[in-house]
Amino acid sequence: MSALSSLEGTQHALFTPEEIVEYAKKQGYFREDEDVAAKEIGDGNINYVFRLTGANRSLIFKQAVPYARVVGESMPLPLDRVRIEAKVLEQYAKIAPEFVPHVYGLDEARALVVMEDLSHLQVGRTALISGTESARFAEDVGVFIAKTIFYTSDFYLDPAVKKERIAELSNPGMRQLTEELVLSHPFAFHETNVFEDELRNDVLWLSRDERLRLEVAKLKHTFMTKADALIHSDLHTGSIFIGEHETKIFDPEFAFFGPFGFDLGQFIANLFLNGLGTPDYLHKRFRNALETWYAFTDTFSRLWRDESVEPYTKVDGYLSYLLRNIFSDALGYAGCELIRRSIGIAQIQDLNYESDKQKRIPRRKAAVELGKYLILERHNIRSLEELENWFQQLKLA
Amino acid sequence: MSALSSLEGTQHALFTPEEIVEYAKKQGYFREDEDVAAKEIGDGNINYVFRLTGANRSLIFKQAVPYARVVGESMPLPLDRVRIEAKVLEQYAKIAPEFVPHVYGLDEARALVVMEDLSHLQVGRTALISGTESARFAEDVGVFIAKTIFYTSDFYLDPAVKKERIAELSNPGMRQLTEELVLSHPFAFHETNVFEDELRNDVLWLSRDERLRLEVAKLKHTFMTKADALIHSDLHTGSIFIGEHETKIFDPEFAFFGPFGFDLGQFIANLFLNGLGTPDYLHKRFRNALETWYAFTDTFSRLWRDESVEPYTKVDGYLSYLLRNIFSDALGYAGCELIRRSIGIAQIQDLNYESDKQKRIPRRKAAVELGKYLILERHNIRSLEELENWFQQLKLA
Repeated sequence: MSALSSLEGTQHALFTPEEIVEYAKKQGYFREDEDVAAKEIGDGNINYVFRLTGANRSLIFKQAVPYARVVGESMPLPLDRVRIEAKVLEQYAKIAPEFVPHVYGLDEARALVVMEDLSHLQVGRTALISGTESARFAEDVGVFIAKTIFYTSDFYLDPAVKKERIAELSNPGMRQLTEELVLSHPFAFHETNVFEDELRNDVLWLSRDERLRLEVAKLKHTFMTKADALIHSDLHTGSIFIGEHETKIFDPEFAFFGPFGFDLGQFIANLFLNGLGTPDYLHKRFRNALETWYAFTDTFSRLWRDESVEPYTKVDGYLSYLLRNIFSDALGYAGCELIRRSIGIAQIQDLNYESDKQKRIPRRKAAVELGKYLILERHNIRSLEELENWFQQLKLA
Repeated sequence: MSALSSLEGTQHALFTPEEIVEYAKKQGYFREDEDVAAKEIGDGNINYVFRLTGANRSLIFKQAVPYARVVGESMPLPLDRVRIEAKVLEQYAKIAPEFVPHVYGLDEARALVVMEDLSHLQVGRTALISGTESARFAEDVGVFIAKTIFYTSDFYLDPAVKKERIAELSNPGMRQLTEELVLSHPFAFHETNVFEDELRNDVLWLSRDERLRLEVAKLKHTFMTKADALIHSDLHTGSIFIGEHETKIFDPEFAFFGPFGFDLGQFIANLFLNGLGTPDYLHKRFRNALETWYAFTDTFSRLWRDESVEPYTKVDGYLSYLLRNIFSDALGYAGCELIRRSIGIAQIQDLNYESDKQKRIPRRKAAVELGKYLILERHNIRSLEELENWFQQLKLA
């Protein structure tokens, strides 16, 4: 890791802690004579994240490398994701400022973004595993999703501006990751999948169940083609910070204009995954999912009624048709997320912290089964409440 | 019309015939000492079109003005449509060269494109009204649509390249025209609508039928959000040339990445409109629509089988699911086109050449009724053949 290693023909070079402090002072984030401490706090998956603490404030400096840090140079990732992240946070700041970190600066040449330090809050996934989440986080996320998709949809945004944004935030490289890792590889017995031997048959059948694969094919095509609104597209519980009185959403590097239901589905799936990973929490997480869904529909319906610019939104039945579609899409994407988090490359702590295999394997299998059920039955399930039966039948230790 | 009038801050200036000849020679399209005749042959709607004939060849010079020529400066149109047209024809030339005019040059600063002269062929709409069309034109258009949408879809195109093209061909200005003139104004008793007094009630009811408006709302949203493939988006019979042994598609100024079914629907609607405008042709035009649809499905299915790069295309049932959806979308957009051509601002000769009002009005009403039927029943109609009943019950003089 040297300041001299230039990557991909850009001015990109990784900072050492000393260099980042020097850079931050030169850019005016701190005074030249200030005592500034730098600490690398990235989770190590795909970026380098420094926290710089000076006399009066601390800031986050997030720098991207042109590959996934966790895998290495064999998994290239576009540096452009930093620009995407900053631009999307800028949009979010206009739409839902209460839910996002403030962005102080973007240095495209260095693939670096400077942001508000939120490390006094808990990372959502950690909080959910330890059971220290706030009472409001699930509802907050529902409100956040409603606001961000309504205000970036054709129901509110000027059509020409929306098309401009779509072009600006095209984000092909990051989208391809989702297309492959969430919507293809788990259903193709792909070499990147990660699973215990006990799940081998389950994984094999995912690639042979033609009825399931047909439904995933439809979901993938919708993901690739439907530009309903600006979606976060990586809205799992590791992309939120939870505090008692606030919830913040971050890391929108995967964002683009995609289907309305994707963020909801992915988030609800991660609530379910947490509940399946810690069966004591199952009922609570199911309630959280309801909180998210109802906060979403309440907020979206209010915005639709009060702020829509599309005359057709006054037509009877249009809103309920749309919510119905968002719901079934959300269930479908939730299903894909449940499956890929159980057997795909991007594993989560919720399903892995348990060291007793006798307990761990059935939890993971349950996640796969719930995923299949949601994908196949998404058009028949009329409400989240109906899923209570499915959870009640479940026997997990 | 002077060479000196600069418009919209570009170098844009309209050419006189003398100036265009001078320009063409300077650019090397003709020799300096060549005798070149220039004739303005535009249909006068939105562009200026010159045919330049020299000693050995003739060429088309099409120049855009930043408004619709037919309406005047009150209806602004983006000059960028010329770049779109040239870029799309360039794509089409790679995919289906047999069906498009050759492009010799694009001068973006002057909003000018230089193309192959196809005026030895008949304009489709004229040929259909006079009954002098070829035996193959309808089938050719079906093949053209299948090739252009397959090769620009995620089933063939590299996902990253597709997203780049989407951004390049965003075309917000022209799309807005379709969003408004095809999918909104006809259903809103809008001042731009054009209709005889006898149709006043029909037009009024289009704006009050909530069941119909809900379906149009869905079709409009799909049009605005679904980037399935590069569509022509103005593929009526006035956008094709018909010769005995060849069919050419031109004028893709409205093109963008939109829903698979749109071009099919719009084209089939224009066949029906011709048949309703000249009832003697009704059966023939119905056969033409079948020819287009089956040429489309045959070609699309073959490409799907032989050239797809998306692994899910091997899944049982995916192709038939997709064709079913393309069909119902096509019927819906056909319905919108039937209605807007009957009572909207962009009138067509097929419904207007008849001077006897007693004959003209029922034809126009029939087009509106067929439009409503297709929009409302698009999910229940299983095949185009089912429409034969509808046409047979029709009594038109």
